[in-house]
Amino acid sequence: MKTIVEPVEYDDAVAEVRAVYDDIMKTRGIDFVPNFWRTIAHDPALLRRTWESLKEIMAPGALDPMTKEMIAVAVSATNGCEYCIRSHTASARKLGMTDAMLGELMSVVGMFNETNRLAFGYQVEPDEVFFKKR
Amino acid sequence: MKTIVEPVEYDDAVAEVRAVYDDIMKTRGIDFVPNFWRTIAHDPALLRRTWESLKEIMAPGALDPMTKEMIAVAVSATNGCEYCIRSHTASARKLGMTDAMLGELMSVVGMFNETNRLAFGYQVEPDEVFFKKR
Amino acid sequence: MKTIVEPVEYDDAVAEVRAVYDDIMKTRGIDFVPNFWRTIAHDPALLRRTWESLKEIMAPGALDPMTKEMIAVAVSATNGCEYCIRSHTASARKLGMTDAMLGELMSVVGMFNETNRLAFGYQVEPDEVFFKKR
Amino acid sequence: MKTIVEPVEYDDAVAEVRAVYDDIMKTRGIDFVPNFWRTIAHDPALLRRTWESLKEIMAPGALDPMTKEMIAVAVSATNGCEYCIRSHTASARKLGMTDAMLGELMSVVGMFNETNRLAFGYQVEPDEVFFKKR
Amino acid sequence: MKTIVEPVEYDDAVAEVRAVYDDIMKTRGIDFVPNFWRTIAHDPALLRRTWESLKEIMAPGALDPMTKEMIAVAVSATNGCEYCIRSHTASARKLGMTDAMLGELMSVVGMFNETNRLAFGYQVEPDEVFFKKR
Amino acid sequence: MKTIVEPVEYDDAVAEVRAVYDDIMKTRGIDFVPNFWRTIAHDPALLRRTWESLKEIMAPGALDPMTKEMIAVAVSATNGCEYCIRSHTASARKLGMTDAMLGELMSVVGMFNETNRLAFGYQVEPDEVFFKKR
Repeated sequence: MKTIVEPVEYDDAVAEVRAVYDDIMKTRGIDFVPNFWRTIAHDPALLRRTWESLKEIMAPGALDPMTKEMIAVAVSATNGCEYCIRSHTASARKLGMTDAMLGELMSVVGMFNETNRLAFGYQVEPDEVFFKKR
Repeated sequence: MKTIVEPVEYDDAVAEVRAVYDDIMKTRGIDFVPNFWRTIAHDPALLRRTWESLKEIMAPGALDPMTKEMIAVAVSATNGCEYCIRSHTASARKLGMTDAMLGELMSVVGMFNETNRLAFGYQVEPDEVFFKKR
Repeated sequence: MKTIVEPVEYDDAVAEVRAVYDDIMKTRGIDFVPNFWRTIAHDPALLRRTWESLKEIMAPGALDPMTKEMIAVAVSATNGCEYCIRSHTASARKLGMTDAMLGELMSVVGMFNETNRLAFGYQVEPDEVFFKKR
Repeated sequence: MKTIVEPVEYDDAVAEVRAVYDDIMKTRGIDFVPNFWRTIAHDPALLRRTWESLKEIMAPGALDPMTKEMIAVAVSATNGCEYCIRSHTASARKLGMTDAMLGELMSVVGMFNETNRLAFGYQVEPDEVFFKKR
Repeated sequence: MKTIVEPVEYDDAVAEVRAVYDDIMKTRGIDFVPNFWRTIAHDPALLRRTWESLKEIMAPGALDPMTKEMIAVAVSATNGCEYCIRSHTASARKLGMTDAMLGELMSVVGMFNETNRLAFGYQVEPDEVFFKKR
Repeated sequence: MKTIVEPVEYDDAVAEVRAVYDDIMKTRGIDFVPNFWRTIAHDPALLRRTWESLKEIMAPGALDPMTKEMIAVAVSATNGCEYCIRSHTASARKLGMTDAMLGELMSVVGMFNETNRLAFGYQVEPDEVFFKKR
């Protein structure tokens, strides 16, 4: 057992958990439940809440789903979360992200992790213009 | 003096620094040099390198400039860098980001900062499928 | 050798290090010295200082030891430190943390890593009431 | 305007937002809507989702509300989020956290931010015993 | 009151705290007690432990004090801690750090915050040679 | 394939990439191209930019190369980046860092990751003296 809690298999799951599993597979168009969901399923309320929020957030809206997945990669690369980097990169690719787009995404993520520290390190004050009423 | 080093005014700048200042104003279509650049100008090599890289990275490519600025916001919000959050939000808006897009961007950033910690906290192992040869 | 420095075995340790090892095993009620301590033992002053501080901090006080271990898990999950997540989860369980408590702990850690970024991203100003003299 | 988006006043809010505001004030026993909620209200779906999750997570359960607020402080101090540090410290105090408890909380947060980096820096491998089936 | 707890003035301090205050001023060659120490003094054990450790760590050893202060700046700029950036930059300057050295320090800090994210984002595996026995 | 993109072998590389590979091996005095560079080579512009910047930053200047590598270790240990910790520790050792120096480096990194959180958690305000004109 590498994961901190036992993942919950579909066949062992209570009805509330199975319903979420079914919705994940249907919404994502996959025929398995990824480890992340099977792990947090050990707390059914956490599973339900997290899935409901994520599903709503990742639906098409003012931003398209591929852009959202790339933002998820940017956050995960900044934090160094392996699971999340791998799963969101896979999802973004499925939605059309090419290797050229990934290269630019990584360039942007790297660049601003650098400038964030220069702004921190020199304690640069925001320019007045950034506070102007739009 | 709030900033850790004295920002370099245009009139006091050496030629190498002035050339970068001119390029920043021309490339960005602005008539002032933001504090960030005037601060790191105190080390001319740092200014030149950072601007050259940033300019190349933010140019239109496989990703459009507005998407790149939104990714910069995502990184900066994850790290909590005020200067960077304010400046990249302003740039993204100038390039067309609406408040609805900002709301979704923030939702995505918040969501994955949450799931990153669930994946960390439970030490969830990446699914086999994420390692498959594409 | 995966660790950056050679861990120090009990039999090879100088007296100062052995004394700390003995105290760790006695205080924790375990019959081995965890890798963390054997690794930093390579710098005896670092070992002594870290153990003395940790022992004092984790002793029962205004907060009980199980709560302290859960806070250690919260910090470690926020930072993504595998060693620390595993060891403090194990310690918290030994002190009585149930799986239901772990589920709620993770829910809280996830939630506030999310809201921290919303507060950062929107640069929300603290309400006046938070500055009032208690 | 310091905040990135205009906070939404109660009187200007749509019905969906007002309902959340009312629930926040009632649940928290306060007679104002904190800046955090008024800011994210600018995206009503984000407001609703965040409040619903937070309310469910912070309700009494396997962990008591004061412990949950202290964990929120631990996360926020690790990330350096001023708004969140101030608001959760205030909430924890209201629920009974004494200055002595705060002192121990900070000691634990500091300590494990230190040991997390020692474990990272030396790349300490988790002991076998942490992987044992419980 | 901006700080979360009331700082402890010298005249109001208990003997244990005064002894630490005296040692801080003597060791540092200053005639005031910085806010950081006066704030954590509210928990005398935290003050004593933190000062004792810091004093031991920052003493001349295999690394000289100026190098140690620059490493403190690097850590603080990576984390974005204003108080720590300002105080350690001031200390490093007092010990001889020039503006040219600060410029290079910031360049290094920025650069590796960038490459850290490229290594995370692409999940680059360590080369075999890094695991070789020295 | 563990890495997110296929590393680029020397024999398969375009001329622009080979030129960088040759320069890396020559500058570093090694006879192989580390995984990091072979991975980002998949985006030749990213490879060139990153190597050019890093080479310029790590050259002897106001700070010596060993000190710069130790600062790189400090940043990487703070962020928890395994690849970077291993590679920069190896480079620092090659340039003369002893185990005693590594022990002190880790002590400093640990200590200030702790005090950063105490300063955050108590929201300690910078002393007036830190803002004085130098």
